[in-house]
Amino acid sequence: MKHSVYLTGVDAGGSSTRAVVVDATGHCIGYARAGSGNPTSAGAALAAANVVDAVEAAVASAGSPRIERTAVAMAGASQEAPDWLDDAFGAAGLRGQVSVEADLAAVYLSGSRARLGYAAIAGTGTIAARLRDHAIEEVADGLGWLIGDDGSGFWIGHRVVRAVAAELDGRAEPTALTPAVLRGLGVERAAGPPDVHGRPSALAALVGAAYAERPVRLARFAPAAFAAAAAGDPAAERIVRAAAEHVAASLASVVGAQRDGPVVLGGSVLARQPAMRSAVRSALASAGVTGPVVAVPDGVVGSAVLALERHGIPVDERIAARITASLAGLRSEREP
Amino acid sequence: MKHSVYLTGVDAGGSSTRAVVVDATGHCIGYARAGSGNPTSAGAALAAANVVDAVEAAVASAGSPRIERTAVAMAGASQEAPDWLDDAFGAAGLRGQVSVEADLAAVYLSGSRARLGYAAIAGTGTIAARLRDHAIEEVADGLGWLIGDDGSGFWIGHRVVRAVAAELDGRAEPTALTPAVLRGLGVERAAGPPDVHGRPSALAALVGAAYAERPVRLARFAPAAFAAAAAGDPAAERIVRAAAEHVAASLASVVGAQRDGPVVLGGSVLARQPAMRSAVRSALASAGVTGPVVAVPDGVVGSAVLALERHGIPVDERIAARITASLAGLRSEREP
Repeated sequence: MKHSVYLTGVDAGGSSTRAVVVDATGHCIGYARAGSGNPTSAGAALAAANVVDAVEAAVASAGSPRIERTAVAMAGASQEAPDWLDDAFGAAGLRGQVSVEADLAAVYLSGSRARLGYAAIAGTGTIAARLRDHAIEEVADGLGWLIGDDGSGFWIGHRVVRAVAAELDGRAEPTALTPAVLRGLGVERAAGPPDVHGRPSALAALVGAAYAERPVRLARFAPAAFAAAAAGDPAAERIVRAAAEHVAASLASVVGAQRDGPVVLGGSVLARQPAMRSAVRSALASAGVTGPVVAVPDGVVGSAVLALERHGIPVDERIAARITASLAGLRSEREP
Repeated sequence: MKHSVYLTGVDAGGSSTRAVVVDATGHCIGYARAGSGNPTSAGAALAAANVVDAVEAAVASAGSPRIERTAVAMAGASQEAPDWLDDAFGAAGLRGQVSVEADLAAVYLSGSRARLGYAAIAGTGTIAARLRDHAIEEVADGLGWLIGDDGSGFWIGHRVVRAVAAELDGRAEPTALTPAVLRGLGVERAAGPPDVHGRPSALAALVGAAYAERPVRLARFAPAAFAAAAAGDPAAERIVRAAAEHVAASLASVVGAQRDGPVVLGGSVLARQPAMRSAVRSALASAGVTGPVVAVPDGVVGSAVLALERHGIPVDERIAARITASLAGLRSEREP
């Protein structure tokens, strides 16, 4: 009675966590979202609580079937579930085996099932990988905001805020990025007298606001770059083009010479920004990467594929198509 | 009896503090050094202790004359001495008036006494200014490592470590920067098995070491860029050239159009790195800045000039030359 096996796939990301309940035929019967499931950005306790919330809500929406296994995809994951996640599942009374999967594998399997292929995720950070038999064979970047993450949301947002600071400081031409950044940091353009160095008060306030936060928070200004670039702002266009070249270079370094295969793009910067995707496509073509390039909104489909595979259920074209179609139905109900 | 007036000038920098005792004729009769006098890098308590140490040692080496006034030059200074410095002077029984001066003014006056001129300091950070009548009229940059300090020691060291990370990650050509950075961070090139992502162990160790420090500590890898650039390493040459262009651009933004005047360069990156100075000279010429460019080792001479001027003693060519010559004599005794 294969249809009575139920599994859960979870895509635990930095901004939200998505969980899906799938049966052995690939039919998705429950779906839910919760907050950040990334222990680095949310802390282990909150991340675990959000993963559990998403799973419980998805299982409830599926009519509370018994779950045999859960596959949780997240950044920087090894195979074994970490203690903080095991403990949270135990405390919540969630049963079945729990495995932790690479978010890159979940994103890749959301867009392709080819044995050899490539994936890049650009959200707050950037990472790219070559995958063979649905497992990571080689990664590039993913080194964090300080020494890596080239072309990521942080990389873009950081340059956005630096460009705005340079304008207010009289070192750069005015840019359309400035109003969005000042609004985002709660700074008024012309509020008070200059500071002790003769700097405009808005610049002094920008400095104060930027250093009061964790650096990685600057990633929230990445969307301002896409909006300004779309409106033809030269500073924003330069930032977006350079970011796309960096993501393409990370991909090219894992593609190497002579190899072919599909490229799957995921993460908020690639999934939600068509300009970034098309810039990455051009940069990939320039770098000689010739396989098909597809973008996926997240890694939920792939997390369901991984849950099935880990349970010994091979995912063929028919099952994969059923996962994608039935999940799309559930999501259109819940994320109209 | 003008010759019986004694004043102290202090250059309180991020890596060391230098104090000089000068008489009303410009004759320097005492000199000493202590540790960091910058409250941002050392904390207010340690910075104050180091400033007091330098002053006490300089006064003792001058035969302990009565000091009428002390001028302390430091980054981000306003005219009035801050409480932490006033309190430290009071607790140490140091008498006379204390004023705090802009490090930019002290550096400028160490290299020029023209009424209109420009100064740039590139150490851990970068700042440039136009000075009129020995006071700052306009500044550029000095916005800190996260949103400014273009071309600074941090800016250079940060790019150095990113270039090394990219090499170890297979995203960039080998660079001569790598051995110096790995040594500096205590990382062995080929130590253990790859990490969970298949990254070389040296890269995983580099990531761990880099994030364990305050970001601004990466400034210590700037000298590695100059050494590698001197040996013809292309990655290092690109970093040094771009840094010089940034410092020149900050200077050009305060020079503006139609203005002329001398340019004084200070701070460890400009004072100790001839390659950086000559790159800044070329970039200034390209930017159309045509005044003479001089470099000074620090702001000690200028701090003595400021102490005299604040005490109502005009500093003419003769006095200025005497400060420079007598200070050089004292320093050659103490910093052989």
